[in-house]
Amino acid sequence: MANDIVLAVDLGGTNLRMAAVDRDGKVLSRARTETPKGRGSAGLLDAIANLAEECSAALQADQKVVGFGAGIPANIVNGPVRGLPNYSEIEGMDLKAELEAKFGVPVALENDATAAAIGENWLGASKDVRDSIMITLGTGVGGGIIINNEPLRGIDGTAGKIGHINVEPDGHPCKCGSRGCIEEYASATAIVRMARESGLDLSTALEVYEAAQLGDERASGVFQKVGRYLGITLGSLANALNPEMIIIGGGAAAAWDAFIGPLTTELHYRAFNEPADRVQIVRGTLGDDAGILGAARSVFLGQ
Amino acid sequence: MANDIVLAVDLGGTNLRMAAVDRDGKVLSRARTETPKGRGSAGLLDAIANLAEECSAALQADQKVVGFGAGIPANIVNGPVRGLPNYSEIEGMDLKAELEAKFGVPVALENDATAAAIGENWLGASKDVRDSIMITLGTGVGGGIIINNEPLRGIDGTAGKIGHINVEPDGHPCKCGSRGCIEEYASATAIVRMARESGLDLSTALEVYEAAQLGDERASGVFQKVGRYLGITLGSLANALNPEMIIIGGGAAAAWDAFIGPLTTELHYRAFNEPADRVQIVRGTLGDDAGILGAARSVFLGQ
Repeated sequence: MANDIVLAVDLGGTNLRMAAVDRDGKVLSRARTETPKGRGSAGLLDAIANLAEECSAALQADQKVVGFGAGIPANIVNGPVRGLPNYSEIEGMDLKAELEAKFGVPVALENDATAAAIGENWLGASKDVRDSIMITLGTGVGGGIIINNEPLRGIDGTAGKIGHINVEPDGHPCKCGSRGCIEEYASATAIVRMARESGLDLSTALEVYEAAQLGDERASGVFQKVGRYLGITLGSLANALNPEMIIIGGGAAAAWDAFIGPLTTELHYRAFNEPADRVQIVRGTLGDDAGILGAARSVFLGQ
Repeated sequence: MANDIVLAVDLGGTNLRMAAVDRDGKVLSRARTETPKGRGSAGLLDAIANLAEECSAALQADQKVVGFGAGIPANIVNGPVRGLPNYSEIEGMDLKAELEAKFGVPVALENDATAAAIGENWLGASKDVRDSIMITLGTGVGGGIIINNEPLRGIDGTAGKIGHINVEPDGHPCKCGSRGCIEEYASATAIVRMARESGLDLSTALEVYEAAQLGDERASGVFQKVGRYLGITLGSLANALNPEMIIIGGGAAAAWDAFIGPLTTELHYRAFNEPADRVQIVRGTLGDDAGILGAARSVFLGQ
């Protein structure tokens, strides 16, 4: 129905952001609160319920909440959620079942980067693109893959962990237990670390970017490295999957003009001509809303 | 129809092998000849026509050839074939159109490793497996990806180039123009090269394997490296695609017991627990027939 509404939440390590979204992807209301740390599963459910109330209060009388979606920074989102390094206190919670019990509507949970890929594919950069890959550069590096207009979930729903494609076998240790994952060379965290390694003591990726803009060669060198390693990763993905588009999102994508040059050069060096020439490398257009819209889309598609 | 037959050819750099295959995957007749080098497209078409005649002569009167399939070691197989490092003289030939004109039946062409993936998925190791990846260790390293029981072709049909996933950014130069592709650490060619680098002057991967079996530590070290780099690649693929099974085929898969130990250790080191524990790493069961059967399957599925 035209008046069907989904409440979709982006469950971040710092903030919970919710929006009421209609079938066309129009955002009708929004709410936000701090992620309730130290209060476990019950604290999260309460916070989500408060956001839902706030979002619903702004709706018209004929608008009906028909489902609930969430983008979650976890490896496994259905059944007991698993692999949430930045919000481990809800590890093992069956969030889908608990949300369904609490709200009495169908619930769709997605990994946050997969949700962003779905959102961009619905209304953003990859609209009308059949095969695309989303890579999000934030605290970590996330990923989502769309094949034939469908998110690639894999056999257990853990697919899309592009941040843990290896780019340097003996490289920097990664939180995942391996070494040299692309996350260690392209996340905001990695940008700050690599800046320190080159003698620049700054606190945020944005500061490193600003230093590069002002001509600091150490800062520029960091983004050369970011671009190089992203180019290696995207080159491998272009060879393996031959996608039409790769979308780069997340906060550190703001440093686009500092890394896109070396990224493009490296991609063409690494990949065969056909997939390298074909794949468009673009920035996401939905910003922080990509994940919320993607989670909402998943609910609508399931109905 | 039960008596429908497809003629399917495996177009190798050394031999052309053809089989007549029925809808159940039963091989009814076979023929083989040397790959006609130095005679261009016309030579290839003649050789294929001779094989087709030989295969057809062995069929029963009520068996009817309804299509023609081929597995080709090329990057692009439909339209002008492109990227055939070992048979470059047919580069640019529209093999599909020429075979259709010559035989008057529908033709399906597949990249050879994708054909092998389809074959194993039809009748071999990955039968009844929804999401699988095939990797072939031969002169080069080929790959084919099956998602939701369908070959992943990508937007131009070049997907599956798993042999050119990067594992060592400054590694050994690769024929593709990059450096450090997995092909440079896991192909039969690479095995012989790495053996030489460690002081063992042998001519074939089989000889290196036999030396390892006899306890030569340099030869064992080569397969440690093969296993390690394959483990890195398959770990990245497990993280990105969360497949149920990865099938290893091709001639150098015969060295299985020399590399599977380090491969498995490395895979678990590199990938998250869920996809690493889930993915079965197995040998192909169809051997050289995987590609022929896969090409035949593609013809039947297209009808």
